[in-house]
Amino acid sequence: MSDISYPKGVKPFVTKPTSKSPKKKKTSLLGFGNRGMDFESAINDANLYYQEKNLAVITKRPTPINIVKVDYTKGATITQAYFETQSTTDYNGVYDGHYIDFEAKSTRNKTSFPLANIPPQQIAHLERVIEHKGWAFFLIHFSLRNEVFLLPASYVIDFYKSRPRASIPYEEIVEHARPIKEGFHPRYDYLPEAIKEFDKK
Amino acid sequence: MSDISYPKGVKPFVTKPTSKSPKKKKTSLLGFGNRGMDFESAINDANLYYQEKNLAVITKRPTPINIVKVDYTKGATITQAYFETQSTTDYNGVYDGHYIDFEAKSTRNKTSFPLANIPPQQIAHLERVIEHKGWAFFLIHFSLRNEVFLLPASYVIDFYKSRPRASIPYEEIVEHARPIKEGFHPRYDYLPEAIKEFDKK
Repeated sequence: MSDISYPKGVKPFVTKPTSKSPKKKKTSLLGFGNRGMDFESAINDANLYYQEKNLAVITKRPTPINIVKVDYTKGATITQAYFETQSTTDYNGVYDGHYIDFEAKSTRNKTSFPLANIPPQQIAHLERVIEHKGWAFFLIHFSLRNEVFLLPASYVIDFYKSRPRASIPYEEIVEHARPIKEGFHPRYDYLPEAIKEFDKK
Repeated sequence: MSDISYPKGVKPFVTKPTSKSPKKKKTSLLGFGNRGMDFESAINDANLYYQEKNLAVITKRPTPINIVKVDYTKGATITQAYFETQSTTDYNGVYDGHYIDFEAKSTRNKTSFPLANIPPQQIAHLERVIEHKGWAFFLIHFSLRNEVFLLPASYVIDFYKSRPRASIPYEEIVEHARPIKEGFHPRYDYLPEAIKEFDKK
């Protein structure tokens, strides 16, 4: 995990795997744990690669922040603000005119992907995206297995609706998802698998 | 301008037209001036309408914030952070599978739209979107004329490249853009004009 090159302009604000456990716990509650951040950086890296190679334009939505106080005497310094939950997904963009929308999730669980960390508004957003013919999926990272899968959002939504609060077993993911092989650059080249999954031309 | 109903969940953090001119100046430098915010709210309102009527999924990218300090003793309060420039555009989404990407700009200028307030990285982003067959445009609000136009990004990019730092004369915008008639709800119903402009089916 240590050989990730951070793409230019991407500054993770929790930088190093720290051993200060109380802080670490807080950050992972917010979704900024190092594990997730490493995977996020790898996806940002892939997106930068797609942009440089002129293959697609896929960007990460900034984390929404609720700003309470701004100090204009210090050149517009935000002095009180809070993290908000993303009401959509983290990533969207365009490939060959097609709208792409996905969420990248990392889990330390080896045997299943817990649905508890997908907020209901993300499910609702992805349902709307599917209805409007967008390409909607999850990239699921099993960090302890060092495996990544592209799982169509339609499958996750069906699972979510029939068995809320459950986990999707690893075996079912293997059956319904496309594996993203690990490479050198980009590390997780997910776009070709998305094209195979969704491009019906 | 006072009859705008703010869409649910949209909390402009500069709320009222204030007469404190120094502050006002600072905020409008950041793009959070009230005039711009009113127009932005009207566009958010239209997007909420499209979502409710199941016509499209178009969302605003959150303002990117560079977070410097977080106080975890107060439940993850951000205590030092700075506004960053959006490296893309403010809005993107999907209509009938098509990728949509646009920027909404408001100007008090009556005779032209100054290109100085379009950062170069936005031009570069919109060029890439066009190359990947996305629908790319600007919504331009002449606040003193109370008129809104949908201007294809391709036209703005050509203009920008041939005459950098200039302004696009109002007459040329009238000639090359589609007017968005003002209505009641949504106030600026821009989607039908985007469909007329870009949907080549």
